[in-house]
Amino acid sequence: MDLQDFFNMKARRIGPSIIAQMATMLGPDGISFTSGEPSADLIPLSGLSEAFSRAAGQASLFSYQNTAGYLPLREWIAEWMSREALAPAWLDPSCVILTNGSQGALNLLAETFIDPGDLILTESPTYPEALLAFQREGARIIPVPVDEDGPIPEALEERMAGVKAKFFYTVVNFQNPSGCTTSDARKAAILELARRRGFFILEDDPYRYLRFEGKPTKSYLEMAGEDRRVVYLGSFSKIIAPGVRCGWCAFPLSLKEKLLEIRLSLELSPPALTQAAVFEFLRVCDLGGHLEKLAREYKKRRDSLVEALNREASQLGLKLSVPKGGFFLWGNCEGVADMLEFARYAALEKKVGFIPGRFFFPVEGEGADSIRFAFAKAAPEQSREGAARFADALESYRRLFSPGRNLQ
Amino acid sequence: MDLQDFFNMKARRIGPSIIAQMATMLGPDGISFTSGEPSADLIPLSGLSEAFSRAAGQASLFSYQNTAGYLPLREWIAEWMSREALAPAWLDPSCVILTNGSQGALNLLAETFIDPGDLILTESPTYPEALLAFQREGARIIPVPVDEDGPIPEALEERMAGVKAKFFYTVVNFQNPSGCTTSDARKAAILELARRRGFFILEDDPYRYLRFEGKPTKSYLEMAGEDRRVVYLGSFSKIIAPGVRCGWCAFPLSLKEKLLEIRLSLELSPPALTQAAVFEFLRVCDLGGHLEKLAREYKKRRDSLVEALNREASQLGLKLSVPKGGFFLWGNCEGVADMLEFARYAALEKKVGFIPGRFFFPVEGEGADSIRFAFAKAAPEQSREGAARFADALESYRRLFSPGRNLQ
Repeated sequence: MDLQDFFNMKARRIGPSIIAQMATMLGPDGISFTSGEPSADLIPLSGLSEAFSRAAGQASLFSYQNTAGYLPLREWIAEWMSREALAPAWLDPSCVILTNGSQGALNLLAETFIDPGDLILTESPTYPEALLAFQREGARIIPVPVDEDGPIPEALEERMAGVKAKFFYTVVNFQNPSGCTTSDARKAAILELARRRGFFILEDDPYRYLRFEGKPTKSYLEMAGEDRRVVYLGSFSKIIAPGVRCGWCAFPLSLKEKLLEIRLSLELSPPALTQAAVFEFLRVCDLGGHLEKLAREYKKRRDSLVEALNREASQLGLKLSVPKGGFFLWGNCEGVADMLEFARYAALEKKVGFIPGRFFFPVEGEGADSIRFAFAKAAPEQSREGAARFADALESYRRLFSPGRNLQ
Repeated sequence: MDLQDFFNMKARRIGPSIIAQMATMLGPDGISFTSGEPSADLIPLSGLSEAFSRAAGQASLFSYQNTAGYLPLREWIAEWMSREALAPAWLDPSCVILTNGSQGALNLLAETFIDPGDLILTESPTYPEALLAFQREGARIIPVPVDEDGPIPEALEERMAGVKAKFFYTVVNFQNPSGCTTSDARKAAILELARRRGFFILEDDPYRYLRFEGKPTKSYLEMAGEDRRVVYLGSFSKIIAPGVRCGWCAFPLSLKEKLLEIRLSLELSPPALTQAAVFEFLRVCDLGGHLEKLAREYKKRRDSLVEALNREASQLGLKLSVPKGGFFLWGNCEGVADMLEFARYAALEKKVGFIPGRFFFPVEGEGADSIRFAFAKAAPEQSREGAARFADALESYRRLFSPGRNLQ
């Protein structure tokens, strides 16, 4: 008997993660620009280890927990969001649920809002793991193109002509993958459209504090104020460590009861031990100093990769758009017959990994010439070596493979 | 704007957990027989704290992880299941995924197999949080009655006449809530039906090692052998601590790829830190001795609650069925006009908590006279006091409230 015969529609709709696939293909010894992962040496390991030990001394954390997550951390987040002017006055700890990273929050919202066939607006390009959760639930995606100031309101309005979408999913700062940051003027225009056309906004903001230059932006959540149509997603994965698996969503109180019912059906009880460890870490660390250090170090990494790729590959046709923060460089390279074939070749033969841009587009056929490089994990010498490998791979690929020929 | 207008069908299908509701109503100072939670004093706190400290010293655990979960623990589980004769020879660590408790596995399987309208067989009564996940996904439940030897094969066959079900969900040892254990003869008969009628078996087994008397049973997974139609769910929640949030599912390898794709869309990366802590704990503890101690202590708790309830309430009509292990006493009490009204009254006025049995039945209208008492958390003196409060509540309720009158 083959249990595969019993898979449901979701299982049939969903596919593998391209990022996971490329990482596997590259292997551990390659130079990887594939994954939006913090650099291991910038994870505050000793502070976190101590925080875990303190958390693990609290007997009550070994029992079942409040479904919304560890209260002191929810209080810390509500307080922090207020102080940072990210939230309107109504936000309090009751409006915050802790989740298994941002993906846990994306999934919770997909589970609570998406019916098969529902229309969802996303940026184009956008974060592919959000698309996985939305498409698994049967959403149909309306793509909204972005430029350097974020999603284009006129395009959003045009794409919505005659249809009704439930929400607009947007990564507001140093977007994954394009690096763009939504200007506050764009946010105001999109909020106005949201009011007029009756959709809500799912604001994903994991990179906010990794700003290298320029002024911080406002949040949709705060700008919307009493018009409670924004759900905000935050995460400690990029600024503390992915391994703490701790993100959150902040939402209007009217959603709380139903979100918690769905959440309980997903996992019964949250992992309060790790949530308490995050709280113990935040309670004693110099967060401001830590975030400044991260921005300083990741800026150096951005700069070295930009410089190395420009030096090695600009004459081969690679054009980069340089973000003001975050983890990602977005590039364009014409004259590559098949970017996925090229990426596989580069990973397997030249031991350098990157992601073909087309996987970030909700609609097939776009982004054929695009490439995403994640620079966060690459120290300057790896960037130099990786850029040289990339250029070598590009030259060899063009020489060896004629258009249309399939490598494997 | 009210975002509640955007809820999907799942959100509309799902309701609150009765167990969570009753716990809230009772408050922290009541005597609770509501929740299937281990006793805090039987959680091996110092061993766990040390294990967490050791895990938190491993730098690699703070990065993103293998989607299936921490490999050494998956290896430990595969080895353990083989040694305990719970698995056929084909089971290896590739066939094991670690989940956020058993609920995480139940949810993963609901996400992967259930389409709205699908027929699912469950025991009747059964574990209500499994029903939450199944019903959220739109499953229609076919209830299979149980007796003291578990689900009744003839009833299962009869209920399936003319219909096609995807799987049968069953709690095989010291079932929640009825306490029954499925005999191996029943398992063989049900496996034969599964072959004939083309459904698979979801075997949930969190209480196996909490056996107070009698001989261990076999598992469906092992009995089915090369007929790979069983998915087995295990959990450390009841035998180590719920707060480690660590359960697992073991399954035929052909399911792995799709389960991991769905899993990644749910949470991206598993909480390897807590999984490593569980492994560190298992690596050094005397597990056999620990499990013997648990069985010995929980047996004392079962015995004191049975004795106290019989002494206080048998003359009021309470009849108990005594399980050979696990956490739950299942009772029957005729002549209570409305068991939910009575449970609320007992929780609010007499500060004793239990769960009306009807919430364990997949179909409305059954179990009106049933009651579930969880004895695991109750030390003998609490059982005595709790049983006295229960009897007092029952007498007062019968005196004060005439049938049909609504308390709140």
